[in-house]
Amino acid sequence: LEPTPLITTDAVVIGAGPVGLFQVFELGLLGLQAHVVDSLPAPGGQCIELYPDKPIYDIPGTPVCSGRELVARLLQQMAPFKAGMHLGQQVNQVQLQNDGGFHVETSAGTRFSTRTVFIAAGVGSFQPRRLPLEGLSAFEGTQVFYQNPPALVTLGQHVVVVGQGEAALACAVHLAPTAHVTLMHRREEFKATPATVAQVQQLRQQNQLQFVAGQATGFMQTQGQLTALQVSLSDGATRELPATVLVVLSGLSPKLGPVADWGLALERKQLVVNTETFETSTPGIFAVGDVNTYPGKKKLILCGFHEAALAAFGAAARINPEEPVTLQYTTTSTRLHQRLGVVVES
Amino acid sequence: LEPTPLITTDAVVIGAGPVGLFQVFELGLLGLQAHVVDSLPAPGGQCIELYPDKPIYDIPGTPVCSGRELVARLLQQMAPFKAGMHLGQQVNQVQLQNDGGFHVETSAGTRFSTRTVFIAAGVGSFQPRRLPLEGLSAFEGTQVFYQNPPALVTLGQHVVVVGQGEAALACAVHLAPTAHVTLMHRREEFKATPATVAQVQQLRQQNQLQFVAGQATGFMQTQGQLTALQVSLSDGATRELPATVLVVLSGLSPKLGPVADWGLALERKQLVVNTETFETSTPGIFAVGDVNTYPGKKKLILCGFHEAALAAFGAAARINPEEPVTLQYTTTSTRLHQRLGVVVES
Repeated sequence: LEPTPLITTDAVVIGAGPVGLFQVFELGLLGLQAHVVDSLPAPGGQCIELYPDKPIYDIPGTPVCSGRELVARLLQQMAPFKAGMHLGQQVNQVQLQNDGGFHVETSAGTRFSTRTVFIAAGVGSFQPRRLPLEGLSAFEGTQVFYQNPPALVTLGQHVVVVGQGEAALACAVHLAPTAHVTLMHRREEFKATPATVAQVQQLRQQNQLQFVAGQATGFMQTQGQLTALQVSLSDGATRELPATVLVVLSGLSPKLGPVADWGLALERKQLVVNTETFETSTPGIFAVGDVNTYPGKKKLILCGFHEAALAAFGAAARINPEEPVTLQYTTTSTRLHQRLGVVVES
Repeated sequence: LEPTPLITTDAVVIGAGPVGLFQVFELGLLGLQAHVVDSLPAPGGQCIELYPDKPIYDIPGTPVCSGRELVARLLQQMAPFKAGMHLGQQVNQVQLQNDGGFHVETSAGTRFSTRTVFIAAGVGSFQPRRLPLEGLSAFEGTQVFYQNPPALVTLGQHVVVVGQGEAALACAVHLAPTAHVTLMHRREEFKATPATVAQVQQLRQQNQLQFVAGQATGFMQTQGQLTALQVSLSDGATRELPATVLVVLSGLSPKLGPVADWGLALERKQLVVNTETFETSTPGIFAVGDVNTYPGKKKLILCGFHEAALAAFGAAARINPEEPVTLQYTTTSTRLHQRLGVVVES
């Protein structure tokens, strides 16, 4: 396999949430080219993962919009700057080079040579919430799955599906005709569409699916094969639940991930930045949005926008130290109009 | 005359520009009541005074809008909090009281007893640009005017109208039938509607109006009456221009005004603030937007929005020191939904 060609750029932005997207815009206004990397398959970050359709009221100048709408508007706003988008992959490596730039590599093998790095990773990358049972990870991919398992693997098996949401219920419904399926959650309380919940209830009445209200406390194995889950039931009793396949669909939980290992100063898992340029303890690496901390920090999207603006000026000063960056206004600057690709009557 | 009743409030916001308006919103989210004072007759500040119809491209999540649109949206966003608006008046006095609050008075006699003061005064209040001739101010209101003068005053007089914009040209056209009118600007270059320019040119051809390209360098007076302007013409010559009435309509220029005299720490005419709460050197007085300065400061509206958010938290901590202010989100907080007056499906 040929390695992918090295991409040379002014900035790599880690995180395609609202602040990462606006970072591209602010860099673009200053004439700097950016590439964005995100572990999710689509841009939007928490706005899309956690509340795509809930109204947001505190974006300045936007009395109300959904997370989805906000992301669409930010994508439109940054469009003139034609940033490279590298989705469904995680930045694993950031190495300072001798020339003061950085070598960046992602889990998909995308490689960048960049002058600056912007960490806009929010609360981290979203990963499936794992069952906290020691030793269970040995079965991941063969008997334990954090996504829908292959059909052949589940055929005729004792499958335990853990979860209460749409994904878990749909998976249980889908597997019920071909496997012995137990749906488990700590309470009998489902958070799925009424149609899916109705299907689950019907299958239970027909004894094609059982529900157990409980939590896994351990597991049994025989000759290196997972055979059962030990479950603490909601009434206090314990029970052994046959389980040759375990599917855990308990939602996503954020993890800071590799960022924590890059030697940047941290405070309670947040990146320490200065409030002048939002640079981390490593010059050339900036941190904006929920991932950073400084005196007074509030985890508000609108604060991330400000941080992105000042960080862009910090990067511009670093990239072109000879050329002082002057503040220009999008209302009046011909240069900014050219960069934005707009024609404004004077 | 009875003095107006004293208004008791959590916050007085000085300046109804975009940042002042968003300050009201951020205070409202934290349950704090605000009153806004502005010297202009309508809200909007620079956005409305300087570029009401020009497109702005860098409001996050708003790919493009005019200054007028931005202000309309911010007014809509702050509407739930029912702030008092006190327009066409200037805050003249801010006095610290023994209880740690402030007594605030405006030029219109409006009086507040407030816990906090937010200076969102932008580049200051907009005042007519004055002719920089020493001693001329003695004639203001009798022979020298920075607005359209009363018709009786100009009747039969030698009137010099200074300016190149719509207001100056319209004034000259209006006075031409009843006075000896000279329109003066340093260059023969008009910035007015084609119709008004055409009227001026027609009156010039009919010798009902003369135009002089020049700048006033001094004035003559006899027995305490203004009689003439000394003018340096664009060709280098000087000339004495009969002037018993002088009307200067050369646009508005911002002045920091009384704020400069309140004993707050200044740096190059900007209020020094910390970046944690955007408080000035006087606890309880905050400064947000173009009026403040701190390391990295950029005079961008979006930065003012961030400053307003953090300043609101600073004020809340000051007003209710017993009750720690927790960050809540407009997407999820029932309390914020109540304050915003919205009903959100859970």
